[in-house]
This record gives sequence, structure tokens and C-alpha cells, in this order.
Amino acid sequence: MTAANRIVGATVWTGEHTLHDAEIVWSVETGTIEYVGPSRGPAGDGDIDGTGRLVLPGFVNGHTHAGMGVLRGYSDDVHLHTWLGHVRAIELRMTADDILAGLRLAMAEMLRSGTVGFVDMFEWTTPLLGAVVDAGLRVNAAPTVFAYDAVAFPSAATATGAQVLDATPGLAAEFAGEQRITVTYGLHAPYTCPPEMLSDVAARRADNGIGIQIHLSETRREVAESLEQWGVSPIRHVADLGLLPGRLHVAHAVHPEPGDLGLLAGPGVTVSHNPVSNLKLGAGIAPVPEYLAGDVALGLGTDSVASNNTLDMYEELKTAILLPRGVANDPQVITGRSVLKMATAGSAKALDQGLSGVLAIGEQADLQVLDVSGTTAAPFTDAVSFACYAARGSDVTDVVIAGRVVVSGGRCLTIDEDAVRAEVTERATRLRGELADGDPRPVRS
Amino acid sequence: MTAANRIVGATVWTGEHTLHDAEIVWSVETGTIEYVGPSRGPAGDGDIDGTGRLVLPGFVNGHTHAGMGVLRGYSDDVHLHTWLGHVRAIELRMTADDILAGLRLAMAEMLRSGTVGFVDMFEWTTPLLGAVVDAGLRVNAAPTVFAYDAVAFPSAATATGAQVLDATPGLAAEFAGEQRITVTYGLHAPYTCPPEMLSDVAARRADNGIGIQIHLSETRREVAESLEQWGVSPIRHVADLGLLPGRLHVAHAVHPEPGDLGLLAGPGVTVSHNPVSNLKLGAGIAPVPEYLAGDVALGLGTDSVASNNTLDMYEELKTAILLPRGVANDPQVITGRSVLKMATAGSAKALDQGLSGVLAIGEQADLQVLDVSGTTAAPFTDAVSFACYAARGSDVTDVVIAGRVVVSGGRCLTIDEDAVRAEVTERATRLRGELADGDPRPVRS
Repeated sequence: MTAANRIVGATVWTGEHTLHDAEIVWSVETGTIEYVGPSRGPAGDGDIDGTGRLVLPGFVNGHTHAGMGVLRGYSDDVHLHTWLGHVRAIELRMTADDILAGLRLAMAEMLRSGTVGFVDMFEWTTPLLGAVVDAGLRVNAAPTVFAYDAVAFPSAATATGAQVLDATPGLAAEFAGEQRITVTYGLHAPYTCPPEMLSDVAARRADNGIGIQIHLSETRREVAESLEQWGVSPIRHVADLGLLPGRLHVAHAVHPEPGDLGLLAGPGVTVSHNPVSNLKLGAGIAPVPEYLAGDVALGLGTDSVASNNTLDMYEELKTAILLPRGVANDPQVITGRSVLKMATAGSAKALDQGLSGVLAIGEQADLQVLDVSGTTAAPFTDAVSFACYAARGSDVTDVVIAGRVVVSGGRCLTIDEDAVRAEVTERATRLRGELADGDPRPVRS
Repeated sequence: MTAANRIVGATVWTGEHTLHDAEIVWSVETGTIEYVGPSRGPAGDGDIDGTGRLVLPGFVNGHTHAGMGVLRGYSDDVHLHTWLGHVRAIELRMTADDILAGLRLAMAEMLRSGTVGFVDMFEWTTPLLGAVVDAGLRVNAAPTVFAYDAVAFPSAATATGAQVLDATPGLAAEFAGEQRITVTYGLHAPYTCPPEMLSDVAARRADNGIGIQIHLSETRREVAESLEQWGVSPIRHVADLGLLPGRLHVAHAVHPEPGDLGLLAGPGVTVSHNPVSNLKLGAGIAPVPEYLAGDVALGLGTDSVASNNTLDMYEELKTAILLPRGVANDPQVITGRSVLKMATAGSAKALDQGLSGVLAIGEQADLQVLDVSGTTAAPFTDAVSFACYAARGSDVTDVVIAGRVVVSGGRCLTIDEDAVRAEVTERATRLRGELADGDPRPVRS
């Protein structure tokens, strides 16, 4: 493990402004930044030489399902509701080890592309959270349920929604000593979780302070069915049941109805915008400029590799900047800088670990270093412009999380990528084979 | 120069179907493919080992301005008509050497990301075309004019539109022996080129067979002004003046009016869809599914680094697949495969060099090799899915154009990238300094 605690001679975008020939120093012990400012001397042994490098706050992936890593490229060209059926069929055949392998693949991809933390809804167990601790990432992990009596955890067929909800506080307590691990309740969606379950979890949150994650208003169909069944939008429906305001992280919110924006802007609420997945599944285009104007706390996420098919936040960033401009026929409807802040400070807020997403003295040393000496960065004239419009995950050379160097010289120090890839490839082949063989186990959508 | 003429053991998407453990052999002399099929033996000395590699037809960039390489990231967040003024101000200060350096930077970036040819409107002269010959790329180059008496070539202030049009056939004749170089007339747009000039160039084309490139219907403002001034859409306007049908390559066509689609589908006409630039400048979103259904010959392009800000066709490809799905709320409105064909066979048609964009015996050996052994490709289960949704330009390891290896092991063999980057950086600094100094030379938009 490299114990570097200093970068010298780099361009730095702190999250607020750009510094040239700058130095950053952090404490390996506390994980916090001790100096950000002009370089005070040349790079010494063990320091990261910032020549030809750009330092940015690390990205936080605001919404993903990392445990689905084995499913990259599975079911590419179908509607969300069909896709859910396809994916659920293969999820129910996944073992605990399939999920662990997929999680480790996803974490390697995230680390290598500058991501320091992720907000995640999927099966979450002690071994899976242990793998995150080992990888060095931050996570807000929500063990996610459907109805009380439905199988929630694909790899543990006896773990019903009711059982998972009851076990969530215990899992949170188990990792209470890890500052980088947050455990929250995971409610899949109002169209899979019945009203009594939604209000029950709101009551549990009021009781124990554990936050909640949920998918809301992802498709027009979901909104139409909610209006038909409950007479209100999905967002209003869960608000009526006590889920918001309060500590709630919402994925998607593509199709708000009148009044929903004000609910999403309530205290404690964060929202992850996931434009690539929303486009790929034909869900639609979220009204991001309206959300930003309405003070909704927006982050940015990739969703899983089964609906994206990468976890590269640079791709998500550029898509999120471009999309509203085309829809509004107005390039000034959103700036690159505002979306870059969504991908850093915005998503960091959703982690619920007290992070600012800014590189400043006393803040956590969560940062990424990019090579800007290459052809695709030339001429390198503006850090924010490069990050927003020309950078890609493969430009990342180093990543530091809470003061620990986890990627160095483009190599992930905490995960054996070669081994993980081999394992994932073998498991993906087996799973697809089981499905192709007409395995008779029931499938639910 | 590596004289490899064989790839063995690769996955190959030929442009029509996928082969596993496949071999491709080409003739270095004729540049054509001699074998595509199952591998017939192990890789020998000098062969490209296809283990962990995917081979695709090379991309053709359907619309760019490569000579603007020095302007990456210049004027990021403004409307097209404001942007044109900003860019023109700096273009008029560019020397012939500024343009040559920018062109070489752009070509290096294109080669490194799997592009084998480009369709380009800008200043084009003997030295600039010579640089393309040296780089080994294909080009359809249109020396581009505004009004007859307006300065057309930024670096040669005496080269008016009239002079450039008169000189274009001579430039074409000069490179007639180069199968990879096509020279066409370049008409900037109907809002800068007067009607008599448009009909004049149509008449020249009828006389000498030289094709034409033009920007059409890029913004709503352009369409509205055309309707007001001429009573018809820009596309109908140039059709009325004799430009189509006929050998015409159209950039953008974002906002067709009723009847325009039929004109664009006419014989000899090709259209480049450039979604990232159209989004970034707030131009809008072209109706690609309607164009495909209406048999418009569509290619895919990046536009220049001043409105994108990369030349990575993988980014353009994914954006082009995703965008119509979000607009239509329908993931089945367009397939990845159809857009991948736009980026290969579609744009190749616009080069007007008789290329199929398909890897088959007797066709040109224009191909790219990608590393699919990495984390972002795992599990690698489907070549088209990977290319469309997970690949990025940085995955490209080798590029072959007309049988010549121009990129090998991620290194560009025909351009000294280090030297070009240093030169571009110096020139960009000088140009921005001149503008900041309030250089009094006139600026036209």
C-alpha cells in the first residue's frame, strides 16, 4: 500500500475554484485534508507528482446496483418493465458468490474511473459490506425489498422483505464503526411495495433514524398507474404515507407531477439523476434545470451495468450536461460546472456521511487525479471544461479515499482485477446457460 | 512501420455478423481484405494477436472541422450563432501553421480512437491534404466558403469565397492519384452563402462531377429565418437552387420541415447526424428514427473539438443510440446495431470513396482493434452490445487503413503526438493572448 499523503504541482479544481501549480496534503491517520494551496516545494519520494495532472474531488455514484456486475450488457433493448422481468429471472439464479464477484468488478470499475463512493440498492449482507470495506470505497447501502412476503435477496431465497427490513438495523449496527459505510432501508418502488409497508418503514425511520432509499417516478407508466390506483403521483403517494420529507434518497424522479418538485425539495431529501439509464430504458428525460432552480438536492448516478452499461461517471456527467440543452434548444439552460457539482458535492450529500465534496482543509481527502498530458486533453486550458466535455474514466491515474491511496498509476491497489474478471466471466457464462436451459424456477417481474 | 497483414484469434463484428476466434488477412499492396473467417493457425511473428481483442470496421467521422484542433474547449456554453462569432474571431487570427498543428492533433485523436476517415469542412490546401496523406487517414475535404467576397480561408486573408471555389477543382486534380483523398466543394450554409452562389456551385458540380458539402437546418433560428426570407426551409431552398438531389453531403439536418425528409432521401445525398454538438450548442435533437425509416443515408459525426469537445466516435455512438429512446420514451425506437452501422457503413458512404464499411473479402482493410480483456468489458458476452454501450476510444489498440497499420499497441505510428501536443499548446496560448489583448482586426460572424 502506497502511503502517499501529498500531491505537488497539479492543477486542482477544489469544487469551488481552480488552482494552478497547487499542492494538497492530507493525514493518512485522520483521512482529512491539511493543506490546499500553492505548491511549496518539489515532489519528494512517495509524493504524487502532479505535473500534467488534474485533481478533482472524487465522484460519488448517486444510484447503482453494484452487485449486478455480472449482468453487464444483459437485456439491452427493451422497456423497463420487460427489463425488470428479464433481470429478475437471472437475479433469482444468482448465488451469494455471483453477487460478491459482480460487486467487486463494479467497485474496480468505479475506482478506476475516479469514483470514491456509491449509493446502492440491492442485496446487502455482512460479507458484501466487508468487501466494500476492503476495497476502500464509501457506500450508502440499502438492502432492498419488494413486498413483505416476496423474496428480496436473490441469493438467499428465504430472506423475504419482512425479514430483510427486520435485519437492516442489525446490519447498520454491525458497521457503525466504519465511517465509510452507511446502511439504509431499501424500498424498491411504490409499485412493488404496498402502502402499509411504505408507512411502516417511515415509522421505523422515525424510531431509529435509519435513512431510506427508493425508486420513484421512473417511467410514465409508473406515474399513470399510480394516478389510476392511488389518485396521486408516486412522489405524492409516498409523501402521504410519511416517507417525505425526511431522510430519503430518491432514484430517478424522471416524471414529476405538479407539486412533486416541492416535495422533492423538502428537508432530508436527495435525488439521483441517472440520465443514461433513463435514456437506454426509454424512461425519459428528467427536468433537471427545473429541479436545480427549485433547490432539489440533486446527485448524479449511473444505475447498474445492466442498464447503462458502464459505471463511468464522466460519461454520465457529459450526458447530463448535454441533454437539457437539446431538450430546451438552449445551451445556457445548464452549465457544465453545475452538473460537475452534482456528481461531486451533490451525490456526496446522498451518501449521508457528512461530506462536502469539496477539497478544503478539514474535509475528507476524497479525490481523483487525471492525466491531462495526453492528446485528448490538448490544449489544456480550463479544468472544468476538460472535466465536463473531454475527460473520460480512463484518464484517471490515482484515487484517494479518506486519505488512503486506492488507485495508483492506473492500478487498483485494493482489488485483484485480473482474478475478478476471470471469475465474473465464468459466472456470467454459467448464469446465461442456466436460463438458456429452461431452468423451471419461477420468475417474477 | 509494422507491416502486419493478419489478425488471428479475435472476435470480429464484420458489420453484418459476429465471428468468434476469427482471422482476417489483407494485402498490404492492394489494401484489400483477402480472408475473413475462422482462425486457421496461431499468430506468427508480425501478426496481430487477437486474443482478448475485438475487431470492428473502422469508424468514419461524418462531419468535423479537424483544422480547429487548437480550439478544444473554446467558448463552451453559448448559442450557435454567438459561438460562430467567437470561433470566427479566433479563426481569423489562425496562421496556416496553427491549422496544420490543429489538424494533426485531431488526426492523432481520431486514429487513437478507431477512426479511419473523416468528412471535413474547413480551410483545405495542398499542405493540409499532404498531412492527411502522411497520417494515413481517409478524408473527404471541402475547402469551405462563405459569400463570394468574404474571406474563406482564415490563414490566407486574400482567399475569398470566389477564389476558393475556382481553386477547388485544381486541388481535387492534384490529389486525384490518392485513393484516400476526396476533395469536394464546401458551402458553409444557406444563411452565409447567397442563392446565386448555391446555384452556381450546383452548376459547377453538374459540369465537373465534384461533390458538395453544406451545413443545413442546424437550428430552429436558421429554419425560421429561411422561412421568413425565402418562404421555404433551408433544405427546400437549396433543392430549389439545384443542390439536391445530387452528390451532396449534409451536416446536421436537425429540424426538417414537412417534405424535407423526401429531399434528404434523394439519390446521391448523405447526411451526418452529430448529436453531441447539436446538444452542446442547444441546436436540438434530429429525428433519426424517422430518417432511418425514410431511407435517408445517415452517417455519424462529432463536429469539431470546439463544440463537442472530443472526436471520440464511441461517445457519439452511444449518445446517438440513447437520445431517440429518451425523446420517444421507447427503448425500441432505435437499436444499437443500426447506429453502429451509421458510424461505419453510413459515414463511409459519405466519404464517397466506394467503401462498404464492412469487413469482407475484396473490401478495403479499414479496421480497428479493441482491447476487450479489461474490467470495463467484463463479462464480454456480445460484440455489438460492448461496442454500443460500454466501449470507449481509449480501448482501441490498433488501427489499419487501406491495409496499412497506423496505430499499433495504442501508439500512433504516423504522427508524433508528443510534438503535436506541445505545438498545439503553445499556439493555443498565443491565440488566446492575441484575443485578450484586444487585437483590433475585424471579426465577422
